Amino acid sequence: MTGNSLDPHLNRYARRTEGMRASAIRALFAVASRPEVVSLAGGMPYLNSLPLGMLGQDVNQLVAEEGLTALQYGSGQGILALREQICEVMALEGIQAHPDDVVVTVGSQMALDLVTRIFCDPGDVILAEAPSYVGALGTFAAYQAQVVHVAMDADGLIPEALTAAIASCRAAGRRIKLLYTIPNFHNPAGVTLSDERRGVIARICRDEGITLLEDNPYGLLGFDDAVHRAIRADDPDNVIYLGSFSKTFAPGLRVGWVLAPHAVREKLVLANEAATLNPPVLNQMIVSRYLATFDWMGQIKAYRQTYAERRDAILAALTEYMPAGTTWTTPQGGFYVWITLPEGFDSASMLARAVSARVAYVPGTAFYADQLGSRQLRLSYCFPTPERIEEGVRRLAGVLNGELDVMRTFGTGATRALEGPQSPAPNTV
Amino acid sequence: MTGNSLDPHLNRYARRTEGMRASAIRALFAVASRPEVVSLAGGMPYLNSLPLGMLGQDVNQLVAEEGLTALQYGSGQGILALREQICEVMALEGIQAHPDDVVVTVGSQMALDLVTRIFCDPGDVILAEAPSYVGALGTFAAYQAQVVHVAMDADGLIPEALTAAIASCRAAGRRIKLLYTIPNFHNPAGVTLSDERRGVIARICRDEGITLLEDNPYGLLGFDDAVHRAIRADDPDNVIYLGSFSKTFAPGLRVGWVLAPHAVREKLVLANEAATLNPPVLNQMIVSRYLATFDWMGQIKAYRQTYAERRDAILAALTEYMPAGTTWTTPQGGFYVWITLPEGFDSASMLARAVSARVAYVPGTAFYADQLGSRQLRLSYCFPTPERIEEGVRRLAGVLNGELDVMRTFGTGATRALEGPQSPAPNTV
Repeated sequence: MTGNSLDPHLNRYARRTEGMRASAIRALFAVASRPEVVSLAGGMPYLNSLPLGMLGQDVNQLVAEEGLTALQYGSGQGILALREQICEVMALEGIQAHPDDVVVTVGSQMALDLVTRIFCDPGDVILAEAPSYVGALGTFAAYQAQVVHVAMDADGLIPEALTAAIASCRAAGRRIKLLYTIPNFHNPAGVTLSDERRGVIARICRDEGITLLEDNPYGLLGFDDAVHRAIRADDPDNVIYLGSFSKTFAPGLRVGWVLAPHAVREKLVLANEAATLNPPVLNQMIVSRYLATFDWMGQIKAYRQTYAERRDAILAALTEYMPAGTTWTTPQGGFYVWITLPEGFDSASMLARAVSARVAYVPGTAFYADQLGSRQLRLSYCFPTPERIEEGVRRLAGVLNGELDVMRTFGTGATRALEGPQSPAPNTV
Repeated sequence: MTGNSLDPHLNRYARRTEGMRASAIRALFAVASRPEVVSLAGGMPYLNSLPLGMLGQDVNQLVAEEGLTALQYGSGQGILALREQICEVMALEGIQAHPDDVVVTVGSQMALDLVTRIFCDPGDVILAEAPSYVGALGTFAAYQAQVVHVAMDADGLIPEALTAAIASCRAAGRRIKLLYTIPNFHNPAGVTLSDERRGVIARICRDEGITLLEDNPYGLLGFDDAVHRAIRADDPDNVIYLGSFSKTFAPGLRVGWVLAPHAVREKLVLANEAATLNPPVLNQMIVSRYLATFDWMGQIKAYRQTYAERRDAILAALTEYMPAGTTWTTPQGGFYVWITLPEGFDSASMLARAVSARVAYVPGTAFYADQLGSRQLRLSYCFPTPERIEEGVRRLAGVLNGELDVMRTFGTGATRALEGPQSPAPNTV
């Protein structure tokens, strides 16, 4: 528990606050947001290609003509028109769903919160990829759920590792509630679950009585225009699916959704009401009108092209500048490359030096609930221009080479703040 | 726990879902939303006086010129400009606060959720007025907190009753975390905590080590233009204050806030991030621009005048139509009148007949965690016109008189679905 003797509330907090910790790298990120720093840290979409002028006129019309609805309280489940359109979006991934089973949420982060809320008692286990999305780990910790990581490779989550993790938890008498997975263009690992493995993993979960939580914010952002079939498409009863407009449209609206089996959906609506009464009506209507009147698939194609160019730029720069022994994944979509540094590096303790060298990233430990990942880091290529990306990677390589010099002089332990086993790196292609 | 044998997830839910129940009156409210029904049920602000044309143009400009910020991810604490303006709004109630101690939330409902999340373990006690806000009771139940009601009268929460409730909980070994209070124009009771009692209640909480949670969505909507001094104004260390733009501007934006002592604020930001990453940036910028460019106090005065006329209309209609023995509170602001029916009535079981007679209200039991309130009901006068209010009260009186006829014929128990002690009614003036 954080706090000090000056806090009169210190003995009044709930036990779950013990799992809520301010990240030690927060202060560094305040520095990293300065314009002279190339940030390869944040996963902010590059919104410059959005038609802001047209969007503004559309929102103007919406407020002027439908303001009495848009600015009023609404349904705890979300507006019907948007839920119908969400079903059309999910149909692109092979999902057949009824709008009645969709709940609109304040970003898919809120959906993550609500699902954890209705499934997890303190101590319950959530299986998650190694590494996993930092925001999900924060939510799971807030509900005192315990994350058990499952190894991945270049084809995503490894079914045999999943089976072994389940057996190990069961042998220890631990209660497993969810498998949390990001099958497409994984955050942070940058890999995609192969189509062959999807059915295997779904069947394992079904057989073991574990609800599968499929988080898919990046699914439509594949660089070869291919859309992978969702796990949910072939398993409607045991999969809860999370979607988001944050990456395909705009995150500042905070509009996401959850598709769940009917009985679960009922509980999610009640939980949504307890949390927010209802998601903002205006924002839902903005997204609904955008889907109805804009060429939104055209916009997604523009996003794909932008991010593909930047993926190419970062891979080329990594090949050119990274010191020998560094490996990385090859994303086919999404925002992220996952880097594994040679033996002896500690990406967390190195961050301050990187920010001094005007480049920022997220240390690998942020993506683990168990302190692994110290030799790894996540680079985001979604926001900076290709030129800035190259410059950022060049600066990062400079920092790495400086560290190598220190290690050669003083020994490999010189830069490591934390000893421990390394995380399983996805194989690099 | 709700659910049935067809729900494969039935044995996987968290224990807290036992406290999440769909209200039995939900189905009735679907019917009650038909235009032929006069709804005195919902607390929807009357938005027709908002300058929608100007607002639309303003939002247009915001999206066109600042869209790259408005549509992007933002801070988990909320944008600084809005937090500064929130401090100016709170200054109207005597509060001196720093923007650093303000956290913007998705409506003040999300603030209620976050405060409960960081303070309450299962079984912890929250003291709350009798009756209390139905949305707060839902949130408290979702965190398995136990509500102990404290009696009110026409001057709000009774300090002696608070002291007695604390002593009773302590004697039973129960751990009290919060006193939740709505001091101004109470929802649903329609009463206001007297200025004399505010300091007394704050001191009791301070002395007893109980954090005071002051929920003040209606504070600026007093009909005599007087603004009561907030409890927080004189007790910055032990009071957490919740505010909202839902009633003074527009609820569809879902912009509320919490002002908390610094150590608590840090935890609230972490909890906010775990729940939503950040509140929608666009909505915060809309509110901020509205406060900066519109005569927002003029708009609040327009709201006050509208609601004062409707308060007058409902009080006149109650005096004219209600059967003898019915009593009600006299609100000096806000949205609600709290009705106590004569002995023998059951407002919950009567609701179906009322909706058949084309009038809707919220039964008193919704506002209690302990099944009290069966002889009481809440009427909202905020949304319907004065003419519709009068018609609604006339219809309600017809239903009550019909019930009285049945009781005279078959005895007073005939219409009561639930026997039990009655809730303490606020004294009527």
